[in-house]
Amino acid sequence: MRTIDWIPADDAEREPGRGFIRLVDQTLLPDSLVELDIHDLDVLVDAIQRLAVRGAPALGVAGALGVALAAQSLPADQARQAIAELREARPTAVNLAYGVDTALAALEQGGPLAALDAALRVRDADIAACVAMAERGTDALARLIPDRAALTVLTICNTGALAAVEHGTALGVVAKLHREGRLVRAIACETRPLLQGARLTAWELGRMGAAYDVIVDSAAAITLARGGIDAVLVGADRIAANGDTANKIGTFAVALAAARAGVPFLVVAPETTIDRDTPNGDAIEIEDRGGAEVRLFRGVRVTPPDATALNPAFDVTPADLITAIVTDARVIDVAAGDTPAARPVAAETTE
Amino acid sequence: MRTIDWIPADDAEREPGRGFIRLVDQTLLPDSLVELDIHDLDVLVDAIQRLAVRGAPALGVAGALGVALAAQSLPADQARQAIAELREARPTAVNLAYGVDTALAALEQGGPLAALDAALRVRDADIAACVAMAERGTDALARLIPDRAALTVLTICNTGALAAVEHGTALGVVAKLHREGRLVRAIACETRPLLQGARLTAWELGRMGAAYDVIVDSAAAITLARGGIDAVLVGADRIAANGDTANKIGTFAVALAAARAGVPFLVVAPETTIDRDTPNGDAIEIEDRGGAEVRLFRGVRVTPPDATALNPAFDVTPADLITAIVTDARVIDVAAGDTPAARPVAAETTE
Repeated sequence: MRTIDWIPADDAEREPGRGFIRLVDQTLLPDSLVELDIHDLDVLVDAIQRLAVRGAPALGVAGALGVALAAQSLPADQARQAIAELREARPTAVNLAYGVDTALAALEQGGPLAALDAALRVRDADIAACVAMAERGTDALARLIPDRAALTVLTICNTGALAAVEHGTALGVVAKLHREGRLVRAIACETRPLLQGARLTAWELGRMGAAYDVIVDSAAAITLARGGIDAVLVGADRIAANGDTANKIGTFAVALAAARAGVPFLVVAPETTIDRDTPNGDAIEIEDRGGAEVRLFRGVRVTPPDATALNPAFDVTPADLITAIVTDARVIDVAAGDTPAARPVAAETTE
Repeated sequence: MRTIDWIPADDAEREPGRGFIRLVDQTLLPDSLVELDIHDLDVLVDAIQRLAVRGAPALGVAGALGVALAAQSLPADQARQAIAELREARPTAVNLAYGVDTALAALEQGGPLAALDAALRVRDADIAACVAMAERGTDALARLIPDRAALTVLTICNTGALAAVEHGTALGVVAKLHREGRLVRAIACETRPLLQGARLTAWELGRMGAAYDVIVDSAAAITLARGGIDAVLVGADRIAANGDTANKIGTFAVALAAARAGVPFLVVAPETTIDRDTPNGDAIEIEDRGGAEVRLFRGVRVTPPDATALNPAFDVTPADLITAIVTDARVIDVAAGDTPAARPVAAETTE
């Protein structure tokens, strides 16, 4: 199963390039596994905004496939407008804009079929990048923690197959550890307000047969302090040139606790997540998703009816709290002062 | 309204000391304000364990009044057994054991009426201590932050009137700031898993007419880092001799973020919360309340059905992250190396 994919239409042989987007509706997990068939860009933008599809890599693929969908289903001027809205559907993750821009450049150069080709390459590059990250991530852990044959790791949000097309980023590393018998246990922070950890990461860990426990986000600090966690693995929505990393709200608090406990803290994300135009974390826009997500807990109101709430969806972990950034192309030794700013030669193959 | 109190029975004139415990059922807030009349120690223990009454000071009063209730309603041997169970109903807060022990000593010396007298003194001392803490806390803030006429403060869990008999500890300081026009805004961490911040602190802040926002616990770090918070105020369940402080899960993470941001972090708790027999935080037992509170919220399941969860209800904030501990008797300048270990002369009046 792919989290998001392009499905050729039945008449695709007659009309090359015709098709639609199919994606798992993640708002319904872990209770129901439902796939949505999306033929209309408005529906895609809505799916992105209500987090039916989420995760930085998957958003990149959604952006690219969305351009292909717009190009085949709308007149040129309407397509342009719809693509602009798609690009702005969520502001923090750089991957959405990257995916849109990649397919849009192809559209402008070569038309709808070229856009679809480019979008499918973004999809396939994501799959390949996840495989590469799992390889580099497990190698990095073996180097950082040479004295332990199997690890207990802590993670936040969902960075598994559901956050990408297949495999995932940080949770892709965990999955590879598990497949190789090198995982003792995973601790999944529940990830308020939308509980991607409790809902999605727990669901993925259960499906892969890995031992895990869910904790409330605020229990990460004492869990790290009391020992037994070998490494923290997180994803990223945008990595600034100096290594400051925007990721799901709560990541910064986990990084502070990991630093205090002396536990290695690894960011796992594709090269496309690195935004060289953003010098540091202060320049990263933090999306506030509005108070309703905080006031409600899976539809049950928690606060007094007239309560107001702040809801920053991301935070920025300063580079000094990060041990290493693992990409599909390299391991950036942030603790040693390396930064992601330089573009690696090897990364050209996946970008 | 008092959160917990002793109500003399109608026939108390004929039978001196007859009465029962009345307390607000905090599990039903903010939706319903319901008071429970408790005539039976089993019901009190159940109310404590399901957090119908919670908050370290209120638990001290519940413990003391519980001894008085047992003494009047049970034969001596059954009372002894029931009181022992009451004392162990929750292991982390020292106040519950303190309240039980105080009334039990009086019971053994002077019988049921003496136990009731002692319990009512514990209640009255709690009210007086909260008044004193609010005074000392607001003074301490004025000294620590002399350049700001009004403050924005961040807090976690509920430390207001609902956590005591009246007034509260950390939120009592916030309430006094508000009454004096010195509060800009309060930021209430929601406090997973049981959401005492979102439910109870928001309810109290709303009732007092204070401006506030609820945030998810994991948003405290970025909220502190991005500026605008002048101080963090938290309560305590047990303070070790060296100043290490056990409090609601999440407090440690907030303290790490406050230290990183250079924001003063104040613990506000009565002298009775200081446990001189506990040398430091490593010796504090952390209650795990079981996975159900993490897996479910108000009957709505969050995780996959077979998920396991860890649920430490408290954490320990090391003294080096604490600016000051404000009690009813003194302000302990922890940042300057003072510890709570010595017993202050003035504290005798409230103990």
